[in-house]
This record gives sequence, structure tokens and C-alpha cells, in this order.
Amino acid sequence: MSSIAPARPAKRAFNFNAGPAALPLSVLERMRDELLDYHGTGMSVMELSHRSPEYEAINAAAELNLRKLLAIPDDYAVIFVQGGGSLQFSSVPQNLALPGKPIDVLHTGAWTAKAIGELRKGFLHNIAASTESEKFTRVPRAEEIKLSADASYTYLCTNNTIEGTQYHSLPSSAAPLVADMSSDIASRPIDVSKFGLIFAGAQKNLGPSGVTLVIVRKDLAERADKNLPTILQYRTHIKEKSLYHTPPTFAVYTLGLVTEWIAAEGGLPGIQKRNEAKAKLLYDTIDNSNGYYRCPVEKSSRSLMNVVFRVAGGDEAEEKEFAKGAAAANLVGTPGHRSVGGMRISLYNAVGQDAVEALVAYMREFQRTRG
Amino acid sequence: MSSIAPARPAKRAFNFNAGPAALPLSVLERMRDELLDYHGTGMSVMELSHRSPEYEAINAAAELNLRKLLAIPDDYAVIFVQGGGSLQFSSVPQNLALPGKPIDVLHTGAWTAKAIGELRKGFLHNIAASTESEKFTRVPRAEEIKLSADASYTYLCTNNTIEGTQYHSLPSSAAPLVADMSSDIASRPIDVSKFGLIFAGAQKNLGPSGVTLVIVRKDLAERADKNLPTILQYRTHIKEKSLYHTPPTFAVYTLGLVTEWIAAEGGLPGIQKRNEAKAKLLYDTIDNSNGYYRCPVEKSSRSLMNVVFRVAGGDEAEEKEFAKGAAAANLVGTPGHRSVGGMRISLYNAVGQDAVEALVAYMREFQRTRG
Repeated sequence: MSSIAPARPAKRAFNFNAGPAALPLSVLERMRDELLDYHGTGMSVMELSHRSPEYEAINAAAELNLRKLLAIPDDYAVIFVQGGGSLQFSSVPQNLALPGKPIDVLHTGAWTAKAIGELRKGFLHNIAASTESEKFTRVPRAEEIKLSADASYTYLCTNNTIEGTQYHSLPSSAAPLVADMSSDIASRPIDVSKFGLIFAGAQKNLGPSGVTLVIVRKDLAERADKNLPTILQYRTHIKEKSLYHTPPTFAVYTLGLVTEWIAAEGGLPGIQKRNEAKAKLLYDTIDNSNGYYRCPVEKSSRSLMNVVFRVAGGDEAEEKEFAKGAAAANLVGTPGHRSVGGMRISLYNAVGQDAVEALVAYMREFQRTRG
Repeated sequence: MSSIAPARPAKRAFNFNAGPAALPLSVLERMRDELLDYHGTGMSVMELSHRSPEYEAINAAAELNLRKLLAIPDDYAVIFVQGGGSLQFSSVPQNLALPGKPIDVLHTGAWTAKAIGELRKGFLHNIAASTESEKFTRVPRAEEIKLSADASYTYLCTNNTIEGTQYHSLPSSAAPLVADMSSDIASRPIDVSKFGLIFAGAQKNLGPSGVTLVIVRKDLAERADKNLPTILQYRTHIKEKSLYHTPPTFAVYTLGLVTEWIAAEGGLPGIQKRNEAKAKLLYDTIDNSNGYYRCPVEKSSRSLMNVVFRVAGGDEAEEKEFAKGAAAANLVGTPGHRSVGGMRISLYNAVGQDAVEALVAYMREFQRTRG
């Protein structure tokens, strides 16, 4: 085992994974440097008690950084839980559904389908809009959305990782908006006050897997039946400031470091600008390829986070070659989700402009030699 | 930021935290050395896709290592989930309770009390034994346990972290035994075939917080109603080999490294021998202190993992001094749980004999100067 860690890794991949995904190099370096001794404690962050002042400070700073970055109003709680979006698919209705009042859902792809799957287990709900007939190549238009008069809440997924779509304006809803923001949280400024609840796994834009952020208007958290398992009630974690039980301490610590990095990059306005530039470069390359590359998503719904496209008219053999050559060129994670095929490039916060430049150079060369 | 990490930390605490707790130094060093580049991928483990061959190998190795260490029979599944013991308190009855058949519980302290709290939310149950009248200073004797004729399962907590008690022989039960083994998993050999289900948060003997091990007899996992949230059904994780949704990848990786370390230390027989020697040294110091230190736990129930004792007849001011002086001597985590006071020394697998020697030297000196 080497006793000297290199200042930079011998090789750093251009990482387009859909999540878990790229982390900022400076964050990884800091984790490495602190791994054996956090702030002179003689312990790793992983070895700290979650009741220690050091961890309480880590937990509080992570919350505070998010509050500042996202401008979260005081009547919202910010909590860290476990289980990812997949647990939220049942936790949200368990906590927020009101008797006799349906849950309105905007159905936009694989992740809202999973959420609907959990609603089918006994929750009154209404598909207020769906773009399934168009293979989810766009999000619904305002005039297509048929909301109930008395919904418990209106549910949507702001960015659809698999389909490569994203809302660029929010639907209006009298009932509280509840958003699965797993794949575009903290990628651009949002108006939190327009939501009743936002949840997001950290592993795309905010950190590693294993911690889930929930931002919830405090009054809504009081809807839950106290007979729900204690750990599944949002109010439990609000009351205990995410320390009801042993939290995933290292994941929260990493999230805290990533939020510091975002702040140093200019906060969400700065990050948004970077994300827009990265996406523009890639979409322009696709759109200017004379059809060799083709993005199936309607322009107004295109995601800045996950860019999906087909190669050579969707020729699967060519797409396999594309991914293989990309991997050889140090471009990792280009294949699309196994359920849809094609290519998918995830451009989360920590993916640099240099990575996108390397990718589009590869794309042009691939087209030149095989197109 | 330093570009050269030291071979050893400047200071390494003697860490007696109750969990999250000490990790083996060699594991931390390996994590540090691999943090920026896992096996030449150019990515941190945290940046790998959970669908990548590299992570699938990490996941499979962690399972295989546990199967070998604990000699887990083939008719048992080994899964990694999130939410800790606190989520298992509701997940176990949701998955394993049979209609009309009560859950028998052996009540031994704060953690079984939490489990009972969740059973009170609609599950038929029976307190088959309780040592509450003796302030939980021992586990129940065989003849005190009154099991139901037709129980769904019999529930116990094998090691009670707060009370410092541990079962040294298993109660016999016709119904499947279900054990919260959070604080003594992998600390000694066990006969898994005597259990229907075992769960354990990793953060004491197996790794960091954020991942929970569940070992479950596969036929029992089929008891669950399919209307239970998908992610809360054990069968989901069995079928998908812990990859139903994004797992806490870095925590599973760390757990895998810790299981490798346990194997290199002689497996569970080797670890048990170390744990027995550590506990003997500390209990002997307490018992030979002419009553200055006093362990309230009945000898036959004393925990090898968490040693609780009072100082100077339970004088709280002296106990505060004890903890203060210990911290100054680099002995971290000596105060007892806030609910019971006194001192608590956790001697999990990664706590070395050297740490216990430093502690007992401190205890003797403290008694000499203040006793």
C-alpha cells in the first residue's frame, strides 16, 4: 500500500454516468486528505458519533448551505433521509394524501410510472396529464393538464433522466406541487415557495448515493397519520433535525462539501450558466450533424441534465461501436438506459465543460469516420 | 490543500464510540488511497454507476464475504438495504407477521422498546419475557420466557448497546427467531440456521452508517403482502440482488473492505478471541477496583461489545470528570447513553487491544488520584 497519495490521479475519466455520477475533483481531494483525521479529531468522519459536536456541525452546515443555495423559506423543513426516490414514491402519499382527495399526477416517463405504481396500492389518484402516447418525448403543455378540483397534491418529476426531458416552466396548481427533483436539484435556481414538497436523491447533483434530501412545507408534514412507522413520518426527522436515528454520516458530509463547491462556483446562477453552456454545446453538435445524431425530444422539453440521442438512425450495432469507442477515449457512461437504448449523456453539475468538449470532438470524429 | 497525504495520521484516537464507531486503520488507508481512482477506472467508487461491472463486483464480493464469514446457508438471502434498524422495526412485522398469529417479543431495553412501539401500531404481539423490572440488567432466563403456541416469529435483540447486555445462549423457539443484531453482528460465530431473519446496521462492527444488512430465510420473505411498498418488501431486494434501486455504494464498498479485514484477522473465531480478551481486561479492571468502578449488569449477561459501568458509586460529577480526563488522554466516546448516564465503552471489532490497555491504565490512574 502506497504511503504517498498522488496530487492528481494518474487518470481522470470524463464521467457521463446517470447517477451515481461525477463529483468535483476538489471535493474528492478534500475527502481523501481528511479521510483518516477529520479536523484533528484523530478519527475519520465515518468514525465520528452522530451525537458528537463535530457531526452535528456537519449536519447543520449541510442544511444551512442548502437553505442558502436554494433560498429555502423558513416555513420549509430541510431533512436528510435514506431510501432514495424509490422510498419517497410511497412515503409522499403516506404522509401527504388527504382522505377522499385524489393525488393528481403528471405522467412523463419511467420515474412517474414507478410513483404511480405505489399509488395504485390504495391511494386515490388521477392521471392529470400523460405524454405516454408520444413516447414521453416531451412534458405536458399547460392546456393539456386536467387537475382535480380538490387534489391532495399535484405530483411531477421535474427532470426525466431516462427520457431526457425537463420542465422549463412549472405547471400552475392550486394544490401543493410535489416534485421528484432527483436529477435536476441544485442545477438551476428554483422558487421553493411554489412547491409543497421536493425530494431528491443526492447522487446526481449533490453528492454520493445513500442520502436523500427532502424539502417540505412544515404544515404539510403534519398531515401524516401518527400510526405510520415513526421513521417514515417526515415530522420525525423535522423534529430531530435529521438525527432521529443514525444518519448516513459520510454521505451527508460529502453533500455538505458539494454544496460548498456549488457556492464557490457562483451558486445556482453560476451553475445554471455552466449547465446551459454544456448542454448547448452538445445539443448543437447533435442538431448540426445532418441527422447522423438525432435527439428524439421536442426542443422545448429538452433536458439540460440528460441528453439522449440516437446514432446513425438508431442502428444498434453502430450505437454499440459508439459506446465502445467512447470508453476507449476515456468517455464513461454514454449508453442510454437499458430500457430505451440509444445514448444518454448526463451533464450534472460536476461534469466540466472540458468533458463535453472531449465528447463532441469524439462525436465529430466518429461521424467523420463511420457516418 | 496538501498534495501529500501522511502514511499515518498525526494523531489516531482510541475510539470507544457506540456507533458509528472505529474502523480498521488499514481499511481507512485503502479507502484513502483508492478514493480518487478505483482500480484504474479514473473514478472514485462514489462516481461509479451501480450498474457498472466494477460496482456489481463490489456488491457481489460484499455478499460473498459475509456468506463465508457467517457460514450463511444457501436458503438464506443476504441483502443490503437503507434505513438502519429503525426502519427494520416496522419492515420486519410488515413482511413477516402472519394474520392472527402474534409476534413474541423478548423485551430487554431501549431497542426492543422501539421495536415494540412499532408493533403497537396494529400488529398482534405478546411480550414473552421482559427484564424491565430489573432495569434490564440482564437478558431473560430460559424458564422465564412464555412463548405463544402459534407465533409469527420470536423477536429479540442479541446485544443491547445502551444496557450493556448480551445473550450468550439463544432461547429456543418453534417459531422463527428474528434478531436485531446491530451491535454484535460478526463479532463472534453464530449459527444462522437457528434464525429466520437477522438485521444489523453496519455502523458498529461492519463498516460505516448508511447500509443495513438483512439475512433472511427466503421462504419467510414470501410472506409479505405484495401491496406493501415495493422497496419495503424483502423479496424485491432478494430478486434484484440489492440493486433494485441505487444502493449506498460507498457504504457497501466499505463494508466489503471490513469483511476482508475480518477474514484476514482469522475470521469470526479470531475476532471472537480478540473481543473476549478485550472485554476480559476491562471487566477485570472494573471488578478488581474495590467497588470504585461498578458494572450493574449480571455477569452471565455481560456484553462483550458495550461495557457499562458507574464511577465512584454513580457520582455524576466524578463521571463527568472521568469523561473529560479520558478525552484529554485521547480516549474518545466514554460517556454512557444520554438516557442512562454512567460510562459506556464500546469494544467493537476494530477497537484494538492497545486501546483497551490505554483505557484501563487511565482508569487505574483516575482511581488512584481521585478514588
